[in-house]
Amino acid sequence: MSYAKQMLETYRASAIDANVLAATIDALNDCAQACTADIDANLGDDDVASMVTCVRLCLDCADVCTATARVTSRQAAYDADVTRPLLEACTVACERCGDECQGHAAMHAHCRVCEQACRRCEQACRELLAATK
Amino acid sequence: MSYAKQMLETYRASAIDANVLAATIDALNDCAQACTADIDANLGDDDVASMVTCVRLCLDCADVCTATARVTSRQAAYDADVTRPLLEACTVACERCGDECQGHAAMHAHCRVCEQACRRCEQACRELLAATK
Amino acid sequence: MSYAKQMLETYRASAIDANVLAATIDALNDCAQACTADIDANLGDDDVASMVTCVRLCLDCADVCTATARVTSRQAAYDADVTRPLLEACTVACERCGDECQGHAAMHAHCRVCEQACRRCEQACRELLAATK
Amino acid sequence: MSYAKQMLETYRASAIDANVLAATIDALNDCAQACTADIDANLGDDDVASMVTCVRLCLDCADVCTATARVTSRQAAYDADVTRPLLEACTVACERCGDECQGHAAMHAHCRVCEQACRRCEQACRELLAATK
Repeated sequence: MSYAKQMLETYRASAIDANVLAATIDALNDCAQACTADIDANLGDDDVASMVTCVRLCLDCADVCTATARVTSRQAAYDADVTRPLLEACTVACERCGDECQGHAAMHAHCRVCEQACRRCEQACRELLAATK
Repeated sequence: MSYAKQMLETYRASAIDANVLAATIDALNDCAQACTADIDANLGDDDVASMVTCVRLCLDCADVCTATARVTSRQAAYDADVTRPLLEACTVACERCGDECQGHAAMHAHCRVCEQACRRCEQACRELLAATK
Repeated sequence: MSYAKQMLETYRASAIDANVLAATIDALNDCAQACTADIDANLGDDDVASMVTCVRLCLDCADVCTATARVTSRQAAYDADVTRPLLEACTVACERCGDECQGHAAMHAHCRVCEQACRRCEQACRELLAATK
Repeated sequence: MSYAKQMLETYRASAIDANVLAATIDALNDCAQACTADIDANLGDDDVASMVTCVRLCLDCADVCTATARVTSRQAAYDADVTRPLLEACTVACERCGDECQGHAAMHAHCRVCEQACRRCEQACRELLAATK
């Protein structure tokens, strides 16, 4: 069981479904990690010029995911007016990064893994948005 | 001249007014710094229970400002669908944190300074939002 | 399999054992997450004054772990003169935070979980330090 | 006056000279900002392959500086066993990044500015290390 889930089982401070919330926090942290590693791999590519867009999108995606994981982990003072636009920004960042990684997935296994992390995170953010309407 | 402004004078990769962009990046970094220090000061208060809401709001504000400063500093791949909701989340986080700090400003000089950083950042985010419509 | 491990299987850019490296990156990200959630839980405690030290130590631990996870994920330009002191700082931050959480573990399940995350991360950082001598 | 300095004037919780501490926090935040913008500029270079090392060093430098700025801003629970190795990691990260930027400074104004931010931050970290012995 992830630490996000374990922590949510030890105290409850919001009405959001703990499974949905924990799954989103996990997906956000995983996506930040995959993007950080994908940047490192992309920068080592023989044709780095063709990976510049991927690096740029991974940079934004990692930072937005990290901030969103932190804010959603603070369930006690949940404020929809901050969390919802943040999740919306995150959803788009993951979608853009996932689309770009998909274009390199046949050639680069690291982009294939990163695409999966982005798709899962995008989906998780959408589910948390739906659960917090 | 701030480093954000100096860097924007060395290369230009977006159509956004450099003065508006640099002022926003500076306000975001300043606000993240003020919130981080205000948390430290609040935690040392004799009546820490009365400062818990302020700590919570500063935590979110610092993280959202840091991520927004990073994303807006990457002007070359500016994507309104990520940047605009992020700036909206940041505007609200600054407003909430500024309001809470204002309530403590008469008693605590550190909250008065933090309120000023939040108000300036909120205003700067609104101006960047208006400039990027 | 974690994303850190999956990414390390898709490209190799350093001589460090992939299992040790992936385990450390996972432990660092988990610890940052547990500390972030523990801060939220501590701030909601009826006797928040008794949890202030725990909050302070979790704040430092989360930030140092997040930075260390990012730097160690960038294996291609591994620089021992940066990575080793960073891992040393992280080891101490985890030890201090784990010790403090241990003192609250009997009373607070969230501190018990956070202690485990800190202990595992401290151990993982020590193993990576040993593997990169 | 910077927000770091203003905040340090509102409350004092450590024995470290406030001018040295504020100057270091400012230099850390400035360096993180300069590195973040320099990465963006480097990725837009016509010969991006020649800037890859610079991007890698700026990525590490930005993350280590951000974490160090946060930790040193929390003066109330100053712990030399965490702060000193962190400052040492930061000093080396700034030195390496400054050296690399220097090599591009004649060609790229953005690397010249980034080099200055790195040199100033390296020096500030050394001064804080000396002040906290």
